[in-house]
Amino acid sequence: LIPGDITLDVRRRERLGFDEAILAGPKSPEHLTAILDRAAEHAMSLLLTRLDAARFEALPERHRSRIDYETQSRTGFYGAPAALRPRTEAAVITAGTSDVPVGREAARTLRYYGYGCLEIADVGVAGLWRLLDRVAEIVDMRVIIVAAGMDAALPSVVGGLVPGAVIAVPTSIGYGVAAGGTTALHAALASCAPGITVVNIDNGYGAACAALRIIRHG
Amino acid sequence: LIPGDITLDVRRRERLGFDEAILAGPKSPEHLTAILDRAAEHAMSLLLTRLDAARFEALPERHRSRIDYETQSRTGFYGAPAALRPRTEAAVITAGTSDVPVGREAARTLRYYGYGCLEIADVGVAGLWRLLDRVAEIVDMRVIIVAAGMDAALPSVVGGLVPGAVIAVPTSIGYGVAAGGTTALHAALASCAPGITVVNIDNGYGAACAALRIIRHG
Amino acid sequence: LIPGDITLDVRRRERLGFDEAILAGPKSPEHLTAILDRAAEHAMSLLLTRLDAARFEALPERHRSRIDYETQSRTGFYGAPAALRPRTEAAVITAGTSDVPVGREAARTLRYYGYGCLEIADVGVAGLWRLLDRVAEIVDMRVIIVAAGMDAALPSVVGGLVPGAVIAVPTSIGYGVAAGGTTALHAALASCAPGITVVNIDNGYGAACAALRIIRHG
Amino acid sequence: LIPGDITLDVRRRERLGFDEAILAGPKSPEHLTAILDRAAEHAMSLLLTRLDAARFEALPERHRSRIDYETQSRTGFYGAPAALRPRTEAAVITAGTSDVPVGREAARTLRYYGYGCLEIADVGVAGLWRLLDRVAEIVDMRVIIVAAGMDAALPSVVGGLVPGAVIAVPTSIGYGVAAGGTTALHAALASCAPGITVVNIDNGYGAACAALRIIRHG
Amino acid sequence: LIPGDITLDVRRRERLGFDEAILAGPKSPEHLTAILDRAAEHAMSLLLTRLDAARFEALPERHRSRIDYETQSRTGFYGAPAALRPRTEAAVITAGTSDVPVGREAARTLRYYGYGCLEIADVGVAGLWRLLDRVAEIVDMRVIIVAAGMDAALPSVVGGLVPGAVIAVPTSIGYGVAAGGTTALHAALASCAPGITVVNIDNGYGAACAALRIIRHG
Amino acid sequence: LIPGDITLDVRRRERLGFDEAILAGPKSPEHLTAILDRAAEHAMSLLLTRLDAARFEALPERHRSRIDYETQSRTGFYGAPAALRPRTEAAVITAGTSDVPVGREAARTLRYYGYGCLEIADVGVAGLWRLLDRVAEIVDMRVIIVAAGMDAALPSVVGGLVPGAVIAVPTSIGYGVAAGGTTALHAALASCAPGITVVNIDNGYGAACAALRIIRHG
Amino acid sequence: LIPGDITLDVRRRERLGFDEAILAGPKSPEHLTAILDRAAEHAMSLLLTRLDAARFEALPERHRSRIDYETQSRTGFYGAPAALRPRTEAAVITAGTSDVPVGREAARTLRYYGYGCLEIADVGVAGLWRLLDRVAEIVDMRVIIVAAGMDAALPSVVGGLVPGAVIAVPTSIGYGVAAGGTTALHAALASCAPGITVVNIDNGYGAACAALRIIRHG
Amino acid sequence: LIPGDITLDVRRRERLGFDEAILAGPKSPEHLTAILDRAAEHAMSLLLTRLDAARFEALPERHRSRIDYETQSRTGFYGAPAALRPRTEAAVITAGTSDVPVGREAARTLRYYGYGCLEIADVGVAGLWRLLDRVAEIVDMRVIIVAAGMDAALPSVVGGLVPGAVIAVPTSIGYGVAAGGTTALHAALASCAPGITVVNIDNGYGAACAALRIIRHG
Repeated sequence: LIPGDITLDVRRRERLGFDEAILAGPKSPEHLTAILDRAAEHAMSLLLTRLDAARFEALPERHRSRIDYETQSRTGFYGAPAALRPRTEAAVITAGTSDVPVGREAARTLRYYGYGCLEIADVGVAGLWRLLDRVAEIVDMRVIIVAAGMDAALPSVVGGLVPGAVIAVPTSIGYGVAAGGTTALHAALASCAPGITVVNIDNGYGAACAALRIIRHG
Repeated sequence: LIPGDITLDVRRRERLGFDEAILAGPKSPEHLTAILDRAAEHAMSLLLTRLDAARFEALPERHRSRIDYETQSRTGFYGAPAALRPRTEAAVITAGTSDVPVGREAARTLRYYGYGCLEIADVGVAGLWRLLDRVAEIVDMRVIIVAAGMDAALPSVVGGLVPGAVIAVPTSIGYGVAAGGTTALHAALASCAPGITVVNIDNGYGAACAALRIIRHG
Repeated sequence: LIPGDITLDVRRRERLGFDEAILAGPKSPEHLTAILDRAAEHAMSLLLTRLDAARFEALPERHRSRIDYETQSRTGFYGAPAALRPRTEAAVITAGTSDVPVGREAARTLRYYGYGCLEIADVGVAGLWRLLDRVAEIVDMRVIIVAAGMDAALPSVVGGLVPGAVIAVPTSIGYGVAAGGTTALHAALASCAPGITVVNIDNGYGAACAALRIIRHG
Repeated sequence: LIPGDITLDVRRRERLGFDEAILAGPKSPEHLTAILDRAAEHAMSLLLTRLDAARFEALPERHRSRIDYETQSRTGFYGAPAALRPRTEAAVITAGTSDVPVGREAARTLRYYGYGCLEIADVGVAGLWRLLDRVAEIVDMRVIIVAAGMDAALPSVVGGLVPGAVIAVPTSIGYGVAAGGTTALHAALASCAPGITVVNIDNGYGAACAALRIIRHG
Repeated sequence: LIPGDITLDVRRRERLGFDEAILAGPKSPEHLTAILDRAAEHAMSLLLTRLDAARFEALPERHRSRIDYETQSRTGFYGAPAALRPRTEAAVITAGTSDVPVGREAARTLRYYGYGCLEIADVGVAGLWRLLDRVAEIVDMRVIIVAAGMDAALPSVVGGLVPGAVIAVPTSIGYGVAAGGTTALHAALASCAPGITVVNIDNGYGAACAALRIIRHG
Repeated sequence: LIPGDITLDVRRRERLGFDEAILAGPKSPEHLTAILDRAAEHAMSLLLTRLDAARFEALPERHRSRIDYETQSRTGFYGAPAALRPRTEAAVITAGTSDVPVGREAARTLRYYGYGCLEIADVGVAGLWRLLDRVAEIVDMRVIIVAAGMDAALPSVVGGLVPGAVIAVPTSIGYGVAAGGTTALHAALASCAPGITVVNIDNGYGAACAALRIIRHG
Repeated sequence: LIPGDITLDVRRRERLGFDEAILAGPKSPEHLTAILDRAAEHAMSLLLTRLDAARFEALPERHRSRIDYETQSRTGFYGAPAALRPRTEAAVITAGTSDVPVGREAARTLRYYGYGCLEIADVGVAGLWRLLDRVAEIVDMRVIIVAAGMDAALPSVVGGLVPGAVIAVPTSIGYGVAAGGTTALHAALASCAPGITVVNIDNGYGAACAALRIIRHG
Repeated sequence: LIPGDITLDVRRRERLGFDEAILAGPKSPEHLTAILDRAAEHAMSLLLTRLDAARFEALPERHRSRIDYETQSRTGFYGAPAALRPRTEAAVITAGTSDVPVGREAARTLRYYGYGCLEIADVGVAGLWRLLDRVAEIVDMRVIIVAAGMDAALPSVVGGLVPGAVIAVPTSIGYGVAAGGTTALHAALASCAPGITVVNIDNGYGAACAALRIIRHG
């Protein structure tokens, strides 16, 4: 990588209210270091996603020490996150324990921008009582993010129970026809509940950004 | 079609307990007539499926008069169906009104072989109370056939509520990613509820045959 | 269709704030009439979508006279829509003139529930100035619905320019690899702009419902 | 993983007659340990599937010593399985030796719940005599589970020979167009034999649960 | 169409032993007429395939009168076919009556070049005895063409019973996952029987050409 | 359609050198008329593509009389095309006679902008001599457009014989795995000949525009 | 693996003229050893395919010493192959050097059964002269096996040049749209040359078996 | 590999102006060495692509010392590249930093043949100003290569801004629906901007060859 290979979107925060987010997954430590160097120059904060522990450990100490890293979600805050706002307007619901990392990526992204959320985990529809027991907690939320893999029946059921914005995040959890998350994606898109929206497979970050576009303006 | 083009499986009833079923959909009236002529020779009964009204009307009077035809399911009984048994051991549940024809094909197939069923329609998960109101009626059934298109969340929810055999029939109802029924099929196969089985898209007939394989033996 | 084949979700409005919407497309006039009869009994309002002109004309006069029908969007309001609210908080943008019917379905759905919107049409990215000329009009909207087929580059560009909620509706407009809308769907889901959400192909109705979940609560 | 990330379905056994089953495949040892800890608290039994030998060895001794582990099927019984019933009502048939692990997962699941089965292996249709020699042994079984990859012709042939319930488990064995099991899945769904049902690819566990739904009730 | 739009492969017969075959399906009557005019100029014979009755009737009398047309296979011989050879070295087997048109296209193509064949119809594997009764007739054939749709289990079974060349023709017969013939194609390619070859879906003509490449040389 | 539904890209010609092209295929006569009215207002020329004869005839006389229409390619020039340049720098080659309409769309598009081309038809690789006989005519062309369906082997062969720019247009001609043109598209993209580029299926118009981008600049 | 898990098709040689072939790829050394032990008991010869060097080395010495192993094709002869026949009736042609392993698997399979072949490598159509230079060597062969990946244009060109049986083996060589071999498979099936047959991706073994079915009988 | 397994296209340079390019990715060091030995014999230059650092290091010193290797693009020049021409007629634009390796492969290929280019990186449409700031630099280029993954909106935007030849290279960068590059490929093919052409996913080499076919002739 040479200097000309990076053109940070330094005007993004003023335009959209978002900092640049760096999808660390496919990038080498050298590549990430070059980006963080550039961010340090501009004194920009960044959100790092899909930063697995090994890649985090491989960063130079000068950057690692500035990163608030969380293992499960594989996210890092480079620079200080916004102060936490008092009111909780979003919930993040996951269908199975394997979906938790995706849900937590959403929760961490919200937190980076100063928003807390209620996390409810492992309430898939095969044991429906687990969700029904907790409907009262989510019925007044402005945004409910629902992360589910396999058949992704949960967003449809949630969307039929609460009036707020429902953002489905299909996850890649599953095997056979569910492998990779396409079944979950299609099921969420084809939901019979009115007004559910969907983001890309495993895109907890994107769901949180969508939630922020909603919560901040209104 | 020449005589050599048809080889009826005349030993099927003794082997499997099923008569031949004729998928009328892609066959011309001449083709169907040739098959019915052959069945008449062997004094066989037949179940006709996907026989739309126009094609039924185009059959020669000698065959049409022997057929008990039902429009919604597009099924015909050629020859007398079995006497109705007193006990109802199966339910047929449909998610939306557009799924009813597929569910009724299953109900009619069961009836052809002498079995009644409980039909519950239009109870998709977007309005969950509709199903929950009726769980008591199905909780003791030996077999529950569930026909659903779009995201096919209904089989998962049913499979999590009742202990009997659950056979999902994905339907081709839907548009966009749901068009043709593949999403419903995949969602049913990837169900998080344990022990749901699945048949081909729109195959109400097959679901009923599977139910018969269960109910008759046990 | 027999009476037991319909189970209207009569509690939906109080639960979600939505009336039932009837996807008229795959339903016969008899089927639609049965549903409207049932709605009349319960004095429910309904939104009819994908009701093409021929099918609308085939409805009995008693129902047709109660329907406010719009050709381009193929929507009908059965019963009076809500009064129009004074403030416009949503925009509906379409990439090409062939996408207008999908965009208008969204606009009509908003209108049914009493919300107006700004419609901007035919501003695909191949002639970028057309969109840039109008950014000022949408930059403060709470929700922007973007309907686009083919390569669906428009939602990404819009999502990079404005901070409000962006809901992409991929359309089935296109040929070759774009036929049926899958390319547009995937492009919208894979958008490089942060926080765009997506609904099913051609689902203008669903995009509007999602917008209502946002606008009503906040 | 934090405590709130797990919500065991503690009412499943009374509702459906099934314990929770843990798909160990995608879960880390920490994740599995947390689930087993929770199960120990509730004194629940669990069935572990797709637990490869390495992951089993990585569990803490306190859990490992309580697990009856079988290598080929990669299954573990956590807590004592039910007592073996005297009567064999199910057969598990596999097409090739590479399909045996999937078939054994089904057999082990049946065993966990106290049901034995007849296992017949390596009888694919390319050497038809191998199956025909053994038809007498399966013709009266209530349920026949058939695991087959590649072209999955075996379920169709079995379904044409015996009257009991036939549950096809497509396997991911094969290469080229057969890679991943989609061809086997589709062939089983499109079977010309009446009343075959299908579960997800490699889902021996699910096939056994479906068999249990049949055998227990009737 | 202008004269320059047609470049007949006039050297094909000497090179490969085949005349040009015209896939009439997607061509207009004008287009076909232009090709036949050109063939007449060169005194070439042609085989016409997928020539439905309506399109055949629309040809000018000067061409229609020179064509030996057969309805079921939709084939036409333009110019005299070769004399029939005394020995039958090929069989054409079809799984269901709906597969007969594809099988007959193969038989007619063989006939055009002077080769007869044994046709065996409606012997799908769901009623296995129908095929087993006739194995003796095909066990010494040099080539066996097997046309089958849906799950296409028949080629695998045939390939396991006879030592000659087996050419599978998947057909587009079926619905749901079988629609269009892809499942049949993949099942035939993934066959567990050794040495089966496959041609394109519904390509009875191609299967016959492959048989001719075998029978003529050896 | 209301006036706001059309936003012509009136600055396209100065920016790119192209007029707007109207894909008439999915548009109603009313829709086309509205666009032509708008073009007339701006005194713009337009190229109409996929305008079938019936739709052309349905246009109002005031527009029809201004259109130079060609049946085979289904193209219309609205307004006068550019004067024909003396030099021919492009060839359009088609593999089969059924590919000619796509090739001619490219030729007509070139002509609209004042460029002639050499058309060579029906020279697919199954009769290789037909192409080899004509290599000398194309070896010095700056651009060769190659339209081919089915297995689309022709672009690879051409790309290995000539040094100029080769633009492959996969066509939707074919059946079975070739239906719709995806096989041709993928084969062209995966070509073993270096430097072939590809446009969307059946997109003769696009291939010609790409040729113009090459020929005009250099 | 327990003894009951293996049912060798000991009657295959007399029925079809083939020994069992063991696809070693997905099998563990224990699994392979169990099969070879069984074969040793029955004094059967076997052909091992997809046996990579590491897995071969892991076999017990008692079996390894009896195997004639070839690295490139990853094949092993267990037991003595048939004596080499004097006449060469088959050619194996490969498009690129990366396709050679697949071609060699075919050559080795032929050799196992006593048949030699002419191997011609690296003659893809992008440099057409390489193939044209060698047509005379193959024009009289009874069978030509053509292994090609990427766009697989070579089988079409060969099929248009020679009258013998042409068996295409698509290979998984390629990237992007060619990854995995589906494009090569589809191109071969959609070939414009008459009478080409196709086997599964990378199935050199199957192509050779098909060749043997042809060469032995006739 | 034996000598007969390689048939270099030694006449390619005179025919097309290209040397052979060796896709090193799937080839073993032995395989590559054999090819380089052959090239050395013929004193041919070669371009090596997808040669990762490990594989480069594994080459014998006699070859390694003759290769000009570049890490990011994984390309090697075997033999001296052409002298650099003074004029820059091409630009290579990349959407994100992860797309740079593909863009650099194109740049290096151009350089091998003596052509320089302008590289502009990280200017995806989510921050549109980054591209708009640099339009003046590319508006007069004869060829613009645009490498983009995910939704690949960049080629459409570029194609709407500049009149030169635009060659899109979809990249495999992305996850979920974007994984593998198919979404980027389809979006580029379905572009609403006129006259964009496309090469295979990640095929920077092919894009450069296409550019050379354009730049050299005209």
